[in-house]
Amino acid sequence: MRIESVDVLVCSPGRAFCTVRIATDDGLVGYGDGTLNGRELAVASYVADHVAPTLVGADASRINDIWQYCYRGAYWRRGPVTMSAISAIDQALWDLNAKALGVPVHRLLGGRARDFITAYPHCTGHTVEAALTDAAARLAEGYRALRVQAQVPGVPTAYGVARGDEEYEPASSVLPDVEEWDTGAYLDFLPELIRATRDELGYGFELLHDGHHRLSPSQAGWMGRRLEPYRMFWLEDPTPEEDQRAFATVRSLTSCPIAVGEVWNSVHDCQHAITERLIDYIRIPVTHGGGLTHLRQILALADVYGIRSGLQGASDISPIGQAANFALDWTIPNFGMQEYMGYPEDTWRVFTPHYRLEGGVITLDGTPGLGVEFDEEAAARYPYEPRSLPVNRLRDGGMYDW
Amino acid sequence: MRIESVDVLVCSPGRAFCTVRIATDDGLVGYGDGTLNGRELAVASYVADHVAPTLVGADASRINDIWQYCYRGAYWRRGPVTMSAISAIDQALWDLNAKALGVPVHRLLGGRARDFITAYPHCTGHTVEAALTDAAARLAEGYRALRVQAQVPGVPTAYGVARGDEEYEPASSVLPDVEEWDTGAYLDFLPELIRATRDELGYGFELLHDGHHRLSPSQAGWMGRRLEPYRMFWLEDPTPEEDQRAFATVRSLTSCPIAVGEVWNSVHDCQHAITERLIDYIRIPVTHGGGLTHLRQILALADVYGIRSGLQGASDISPIGQAANFALDWTIPNFGMQEYMGYPEDTWRVFTPHYRLEGGVITLDGTPGLGVEFDEEAAARYPYEPRSLPVNRLRDGGMYDW
Amino acid sequence: MRIESVDVLVCSPGRAFCTVRIATDDGLVGYGDGTLNGRELAVASYVADHVAPTLVGADASRINDIWQYCYRGAYWRRGPVTMSAISAIDQALWDLNAKALGVPVHRLLGGRARDFITAYPHCTGHTVEAALTDAAARLAEGYRALRVQAQVPGVPTAYGVARGDEEYEPASSVLPDVEEWDTGAYLDFLPELIRATRDELGYGFELLHDGHHRLSPSQAGWMGRRLEPYRMFWLEDPTPEEDQRAFATVRSLTSCPIAVGEVWNSVHDCQHAITERLIDYIRIPVTHGGGLTHLRQILALADVYGIRSGLQGASDISPIGQAANFALDWTIPNFGMQEYMGYPEDTWRVFTPHYRLEGGVITLDGTPGLGVEFDEEAAARYPYEPRSLPVNRLRDGGMYDW
Amino acid sequence: MRIESVDVLVCSPGRAFCTVRIATDDGLVGYGDGTLNGRELAVASYVADHVAPTLVGADASRINDIWQYCYRGAYWRRGPVTMSAISAIDQALWDLNAKALGVPVHRLLGGRARDFITAYPHCTGHTVEAALTDAAARLAEGYRALRVQAQVPGVPTAYGVARGDEEYEPASSVLPDVEEWDTGAYLDFLPELIRATRDELGYGFELLHDGHHRLSPSQAGWMGRRLEPYRMFWLEDPTPEEDQRAFATVRSLTSCPIAVGEVWNSVHDCQHAITERLIDYIRIPVTHGGGLTHLRQILALADVYGIRSGLQGASDISPIGQAANFALDWTIPNFGMQEYMGYPEDTWRVFTPHYRLEGGVITLDGTPGLGVEFDEEAAARYPYEPRSLPVNRLRDGGMYDW
Repeated sequence: MRIESVDVLVCSPGRAFCTVRIATDDGLVGYGDGTLNGRELAVASYVADHVAPTLVGADASRINDIWQYCYRGAYWRRGPVTMSAISAIDQALWDLNAKALGVPVHRLLGGRARDFITAYPHCTGHTVEAALTDAAARLAEGYRALRVQAQVPGVPTAYGVARGDEEYEPASSVLPDVEEWDTGAYLDFLPELIRATRDELGYGFELLHDGHHRLSPSQAGWMGRRLEPYRMFWLEDPTPEEDQRAFATVRSLTSCPIAVGEVWNSVHDCQHAITERLIDYIRIPVTHGGGLTHLRQILALADVYGIRSGLQGASDISPIGQAANFALDWTIPNFGMQEYMGYPEDTWRVFTPHYRLEGGVITLDGTPGLGVEFDEEAAARYPYEPRSLPVNRLRDGGMYDW
Repeated sequence: MRIESVDVLVCSPGRAFCTVRIATDDGLVGYGDGTLNGRELAVASYVADHVAPTLVGADASRINDIWQYCYRGAYWRRGPVTMSAISAIDQALWDLNAKALGVPVHRLLGGRARDFITAYPHCTGHTVEAALTDAAARLAEGYRALRVQAQVPGVPTAYGVARGDEEYEPASSVLPDVEEWDTGAYLDFLPELIRATRDELGYGFELLHDGHHRLSPSQAGWMGRRLEPYRMFWLEDPTPEEDQRAFATVRSLTSCPIAVGEVWNSVHDCQHAITERLIDYIRIPVTHGGGLTHLRQILALADVYGIRSGLQGASDISPIGQAANFALDWTIPNFGMQEYMGYPEDTWRVFTPHYRLEGGVITLDGTPGLGVEFDEEAAARYPYEPRSLPVNRLRDGGMYDW
Repeated sequence: MRIESVDVLVCSPGRAFCTVRIATDDGLVGYGDGTLNGRELAVASYVADHVAPTLVGADASRINDIWQYCYRGAYWRRGPVTMSAISAIDQALWDLNAKALGVPVHRLLGGRARDFITAYPHCTGHTVEAALTDAAARLAEGYRALRVQAQVPGVPTAYGVARGDEEYEPASSVLPDVEEWDTGAYLDFLPELIRATRDELGYGFELLHDGHHRLSPSQAGWMGRRLEPYRMFWLEDPTPEEDQRAFATVRSLTSCPIAVGEVWNSVHDCQHAITERLIDYIRIPVTHGGGLTHLRQILALADVYGIRSGLQGASDISPIGQAANFALDWTIPNFGMQEYMGYPEDTWRVFTPHYRLEGGVITLDGTPGLGVEFDEEAAARYPYEPRSLPVNRLRDGGMYDW
Repeated sequence: MRIESVDVLVCSPGRAFCTVRIATDDGLVGYGDGTLNGRELAVASYVADHVAPTLVGADASRINDIWQYCYRGAYWRRGPVTMSAISAIDQALWDLNAKALGVPVHRLLGGRARDFITAYPHCTGHTVEAALTDAAARLAEGYRALRVQAQVPGVPTAYGVARGDEEYEPASSVLPDVEEWDTGAYLDFLPELIRATRDELGYGFELLHDGHHRLSPSQAGWMGRRLEPYRMFWLEDPTPEEDQRAFATVRSLTSCPIAVGEVWNSVHDCQHAITERLIDYIRIPVTHGGGLTHLRQILALADVYGIRSGLQGASDISPIGQAANFALDWTIPNFGMQEYMGYPEDTWRVFTPHYRLEGGVITLDGTPGLGVEFDEEAAARYPYEPRSLPVNRLRDGGMYDW
């Protein structure tokens, strides 16, 4: 079971994905997701140009050793490109090893710890009414947890809200769109949206909102207090993530549960936030968090501190990366919630998952490996098309966090 | 793969062991070690009387769920009896699952991370000379790390030193022997022993010593400073373990590396010591630390803090528990050192391990499961014989830590 | 006054109890309670198989020495089984010594520090109305402090609420019942229950509620804030106890008083929570907290930090263990509140207490020893019947804290 | 002054460099260094594929805006690939703007703050004697600060020491060499090397040593104490950098000054270490630290805490990146020391610097921009040749920090 090849396959079936394939001399193949939205080719280069040649000949059953080889062997550590590259390799190895044994990856992770994985979708609208209509529709589908966003009055575009009637997809243009932001308008509006949601739809579901890194700690505390009467499940990313100590200020000001992590990549990005209990849910997805091997360690650390998972599951995580998220959700003691944004139609022409989403919950079956088939021929029909996430500016033109 | 039976087998082939056997409806069998020296029957009762009936019918592949069921389901948590009982069940399930897949347990843990496991033996003597003779003999056998203890002048018996010419075995009498202790004599003596060891045998090996819980924090700091010139690999258990905050005082006083953990049972016993970086090596063995499932979490936490393993491997861990230690040693990134004390001859008539100790290092092979055969018929020929660890009193008769 | 025998008597008069009897060569007998709900036989084995033989011949007047002998002499320390076993022995020795002097135990503890012990009962119901009816009845009986729980709408079973019209007794089935839990529903409901209680019954009594380990720290903070207007006496166990540092987060978010400790067993389980002043009431009962000798030390430490007692007094503490609780309540400076749940009728056929509960307060008299007679012949008519506490699962089937 | 093109030029004149060229519509050209040793093409892809298209048309005078655009606009932040890419762009913009004004970059940074920049070279040898001969030669050249390393007896290869008689260059083979490490041997040896250096060469110069991430905190404390008598200028990277909180333990154990930072990339990697004063010198080079714009901020923060610069200047920073280091050294108040390792001969065929190193000190002149000419035609004659840094394994084969 020696590694014979490590290849990178970048395709754009509806949106861009970066997939790593590892093959062994005895004919086994594993796939992993290394998609880094808008930076796909940098990850591809990292793997193909710098890491792939060093892995040929390695024993594919030594996942632990290969992870350390990739992480410590680079000398330069951490960051989104590096950790996505390592993640893709790690996922492919778990996929391959589980296939070798004829079992799903979750079996190797100690087996199922729950009957289903609760997922939350994105509910949005250009008005409060439209957002609530969307939310009501999702409740009718069976969802028990909803993320609700809406257009902020006076702000022309808003995170999480589509232009016109399209499905929301932030990375929609080749070059970054420039959005405009007004924190005051948002602070005025959000409590109204949340109040309206509970007034209209009641309390029989979990309510989530994504602040998308745009508040200061005291603004986040102010907002958290305003939202407390509506019993939020979480407020996501109230402040920029890279400043993990800032969450201490947020925590001191509000009991609103806080979910953070989608732009963290390593345990060292969140060690302080976890061990000082500054957050409630950790959102690092497998794809950006160094793979199953590393994210499992982060989640084990979080569990010691009573912090639960809330893994990112936007459409810029490929179905393979999602399946890797689900393998952890399925097996860890401290599962909290799973994001599921959905995919463009064409994505399903390349990726065929065996996980099942129905009635707001995800279930896994016994398919060996991560349980997602990747059709390389189909992928070849969707060559890479670059797309960029937007950038955000304040009214005065100053750059702001998107 | 439903659990059909959970049985406890207590035997004394040379010394007492408590083994749990889990069998499934499809004929699979797994074994785990729950030996708690001198308290074997309490663990046996815990499993047989209270836990076994609740597990019949459970899906044996759901190790994660069963662990949580045993831990949370008891309501009363932690402690040596509870965690040894859970550990035995957990080991048996990993053994059984790995056998079901035809692979060694270490394969399920992510594969081999090193080529061999460095072990250290116990070197002792009634005099410094005798201890150094023993140490020299072990170096000649190929050991690269030695724990050195010797009789403290003026103290009739000492931890780690045999009576007369027998092999050292602390739990040697039915009722507890009463030993006598003099901390001052020890403080005077140990630096001499360590100095003599380095003077005589040089620095080409790692040098360890076990303080066995008998110093105050300032005494431990004093001792650590005295030992610094001799570059210790570790000073073990300088102060009583249950007071994990006390190690802050030790740390503030000496750079001597500290190894602690053989009487800890749960991550909550050591969370503070790990996250405040008060120790350097963590010694909880699988058998007393809630099994592979829980100890893996503790070791993952320790790794985040740069703390390495030094798992207890005295003879009161059965060869099955030792194999479980080795499965972790073999696969974790933060392996540090493994204790290996050896067993009485008769032990090998019941347990047949596939691990191999030669030249001071342990290697594992591809035997499915934990890789230790347990001969139930042979075990039946060694019925349980109670033995007690000694107790320790000061010269004034006051109880002291043994 | 040498110990001649140490015996364990397990019986089930209405529910299971584990009682230790110590007899001396001069004919004295003392009894102690070592009941560990659902793990009774493990404690019995711990005492009978491993500790009893080591105590024969010991001087029964040396309670301090015997405590240290049991605690330090085991090598393996702490945990519910160990500490309940030590507690039973310790209680029996205090009972025996007080009887030898013809005085109640409280006389040996320094004498009475108050005129009565304020007790609180459990008030429950399937609806808010039913719970308030129960509460009103208890007020009419003279209780000045009430614990109020009610069925959470949408949650089929709830902690503290009986099925149908029976008395509430959680350990009611041989194998653990599986309950289902929904934290959101509880968060939505409890403030309503507490508000209704104060609205209906006013403020002329102390109001308590037991969260039973089921909230995260931020949820507990949220809840504490919601309950602040209703001036709670305490919120019990808002988060799982074994993570004592988590109470710092709760404390930072709410001024609601916090009571914790019924699953702690040793001073080391709560040292941080006490010295950092993270809690307000400590609930370790004598039976699970190492006996009068050890719990007295914990309460002395708590007093240094202004923390008061709130000892657990559920029906799974036998009347002997309750009497030991009362002996402390009666004598310490920092008494806060005493739980009194009551017992099944049959319990009184075996245990005859001399303490008196009337008008919501408990008083002790001058009966020598702990003041509870244990009828061994009657006990023999109630052989041990195993019963299990329930387990708790979330809607998704994941194990949760019960 | 609109950006017309952003191009990446990767060449290997003696070793690999990744250079970014920005050209404006008015004919200005600036160059920046984005070399990430062994990961050059990933940075090249990051810039060329993902960032370059977004910058065309931007106003090249708005360096602050472009920096924020690159950092915040990526959504995914930090890490070596991202921050090296941003750095190269930032350096090129400073170079271009200074050229536009006909002044050196240091003029735009507020002007010269000292007369020369003290540099230290690498002194090494296979024996103590050889290392001291090398060191003596450097002192004779005028250096007043030396980094001394030597082969550790019993360790076949060692960081900082060349094989045979070649110049030391760690990234010397296409695939990573596997080195072997023995911490014990290093702990035994280094105090001897440092003692010999002071004994032989006296105290009239600053003495530095690089631990290269290979000690635990207590080992680092032990080492620092051993080195204290020899008055070190600094001990570099005693423990792995990504765990910035670990330096608290080192600090508590020794007064030996600590220099850290060559694998940090962002202020968030070192915020805790700086504000808690855990280190004495910060070593992030401009090339890996997000450019002049970001590193200037880090150094300003460090100055608030009395921490001085010690910027990395190994040969894997191109002469352009070195010139950017020097521009900061020349202008900041808290300059401490500058590493200067030197370059292979061929490097000078492509890069022509106007900085001057003589007598152990560096001086800058008035050449506009960063002061390094980049000969693109010459570069084309040295196409990229991949080289890898070594990896490090312990004797047991376990991966270790190189």
